[in-house]
Amino acid sequence: MNIAKLLVLTCAALGAAHCAAQASDGAFTPLQVPAKTLPVPADVSPELQKIIAAPRRPGWDVLWKTGEEWRAAANAQASRAVQTLPAMRERLHVTVQPSTMNGVRVYVVTPDVIPPEHRDKLLIHVHGGCYVLSPGEAGTSEAIMMAGLGHFKVISVDYRMPPEAYFPGALDDAMTVYSAALKTSNPKNVAVFGTSAGGALVLEMMLRAKQQGLRLPGAIAPGTPMSDVTKTGDSFYTNEMVDNVLVSRDGFCDAATLVYANGHDLKDPLLSPIYGDMHGFPPAILTTGTRDLLLSNTVRVHRKLRQAGVDAELEVYEGQSHAQYQFDDRVPETREAFGEITAFFDKHLGH
Amino acid sequence: MNIAKLLVLTCAALGAAHCAAQASDGAFTPLQVPAKTLPVPADVSPELQKIIAAPRRPGWDVLWKTGEEWRAAANAQASRAVQTLPAMRERLHVTVQPSTMNGVRVYVVTPDVIPPEHRDKLLIHVHGGCYVLSPGEAGTSEAIMMAGLGHFKVISVDYRMPPEAYFPGALDDAMTVYSAALKTSNPKNVAVFGTSAGGALVLEMMLRAKQQGLRLPGAIAPGTPMSDVTKTGDSFYTNEMVDNVLVSRDGFCDAATLVYANGHDLKDPLLSPIYGDMHGFPPAILTTGTRDLLLSNTVRVHRKLRQAGVDAELEVYEGQSHAQYQFDDRVPETREAFGEITAFFDKHLGH
Repeated sequence: MNIAKLLVLTCAALGAAHCAAQASDGAFTPLQVPAKTLPVPADVSPELQKIIAAPRRPGWDVLWKTGEEWRAAANAQASRAVQTLPAMRERLHVTVQPSTMNGVRVYVVTPDVIPPEHRDKLLIHVHGGCYVLSPGEAGTSEAIMMAGLGHFKVISVDYRMPPEAYFPGALDDAMTVYSAALKTSNPKNVAVFGTSAGGALVLEMMLRAKQQGLRLPGAIAPGTPMSDVTKTGDSFYTNEMVDNVLVSRDGFCDAATLVYANGHDLKDPLLSPIYGDMHGFPPAILTTGTRDLLLSNTVRVHRKLRQAGVDAELEVYEGQSHAQYQFDDRVPETREAFGEITAFFDKHLGH
Repeated sequence: MNIAKLLVLTCAALGAAHCAAQASDGAFTPLQVPAKTLPVPADVSPELQKIIAAPRRPGWDVLWKTGEEWRAAANAQASRAVQTLPAMRERLHVTVQPSTMNGVRVYVVTPDVIPPEHRDKLLIHVHGGCYVLSPGEAGTSEAIMMAGLGHFKVISVDYRMPPEAYFPGALDDAMTVYSAALKTSNPKNVAVFGTSAGGALVLEMMLRAKQQGLRLPGAIAPGTPMSDVTKTGDSFYTNEMVDNVLVSRDGFCDAATLVYANGHDLKDPLLSPIYGDMHGFPPAILTTGTRDLLLSNTVRVHRKLRQAGVDAELEVYEGQSHAQYQFDDRVPETREAFGEITAFFDKHLGH
């Protein structure tokens, strides 16, 4: 090793200006990353290890092009998924009743025990699934966890999805439910939460509520939100084929979103809320994982909220791919994540 | 595509129990990730883009084995690095004076203007560099940024490094300075901060202070701490060859840490503070980036602090590799990061 190599050995460690200059010499040359092997992390619970060790989601590269095709796939998936719900409701001591609010289908999710300080609180849940998956009762999984682990009453919105409705149908339905809830609940006592497309819908609802002059809720919990559907966000690249749920920016979720968008501009903040004005948003807790394909689009929302002066917290879970913090209520890290969200709601609701 | 593929298409999206069962079928098979090309992200500032676009640190795979070799490399690097400091001090309106406290070398870093509410506050800085790099004035870079951007008086510890001293020499020196500071400052008005090995030292100082029955400071800012030097942490794998600063868990920083440890058990919480008891720690703000090799070991500390009931905040910056938030004070994201740390100190010091 010669002295020149020695001299540059650690320029980067010091924040020295010549590092940036060196960078600009090779500016914007893409970084080539060799193939690698990822062991299952040893520093998470055994229950989470099983989820991380799962093979990439079968069908991650199936790119349906129509609402009808997506609905067939969603129905097949939902019919299996709902089979797991009775046992979870029993474990978590939660009951679920279908209903409607101003014509929008909802599920009312009620824990057997609601502590006194939660009796005037109401959570509104918007489920995930790339705007096309988890119709009907299949969309209540996260709401059951929140109700059971957090001991809150939850209204889960069974918003219309393709081919029943396209953009902005999901958002319209969620807003109808939110507006109806404000008729009986003080907005300070209401929180809105959801994951993935649900996390995006939470943010889109805040943008729409601002547009409409509605009062905003007391807190929100957008989990790993699909905040930018234009494929912008560094972890679309760094976590490609690392995330075993979404797998790729060119996978099923992107195809599904295109079907929902139905030709609408993907940069519209009501589809990519990262481009919206987040000033005045309520306190927000964001959740993601280190392997999440949407890690970047979660931390970008966190940063944008904080830049706007919003009280925003970020929780990042070791080794988790997209949305895995809400895959199974029996996983310790799932309980930890819902514990954080519950504590955040307890801190901010009612004030 | 057959119906079986359809049925499993999106099991993972729902948190359904059969997903975990499916995982256990192929349990703990490592994930093979193909080679990939990472563009420079478009969603960061042009100044940060240059830093992200820099080639991997030259010499990242140079593995010196002795303190003497590391000191030669460190001196060569330091002689270059200090050349950039006068301009930065001028830009940030900061003066730096060498001194000692109870025999330990320090630099007193003073901003030209200290607002009234900061005049009774004192920050203690422990620099990074894998326990072997950035001797002398070269270690003051981050302290200058904190003093200049945050308008605090800062004491930067020029702790002994190999071959002058080995574990726990750096920690001993940092504790000497902390103890001396408590003679003239109320601990509630003191914060301790540092990055990388400096971030680890911040955590190690809290563990040692608890052992010694010393009062803890009012706040800490461990930036991307080397909290686990046993190569445990998922981003050691996921961000291998993605992080252009540390590059690999088997690179120069690991080799340097082994020299500092000098045969001591790497799992000792005073070398791998993730294994320490963090109950009673002061409020903490942690900073990392999505490409950071130590992303996992930052979020693991964040989670462990929160599990211990500590008021801990996490800031993750888009596209940044290890410690890049403090590479250049002229980068907007650097100012954002030090702005967050300043706001955190302002919130927690003095109470």
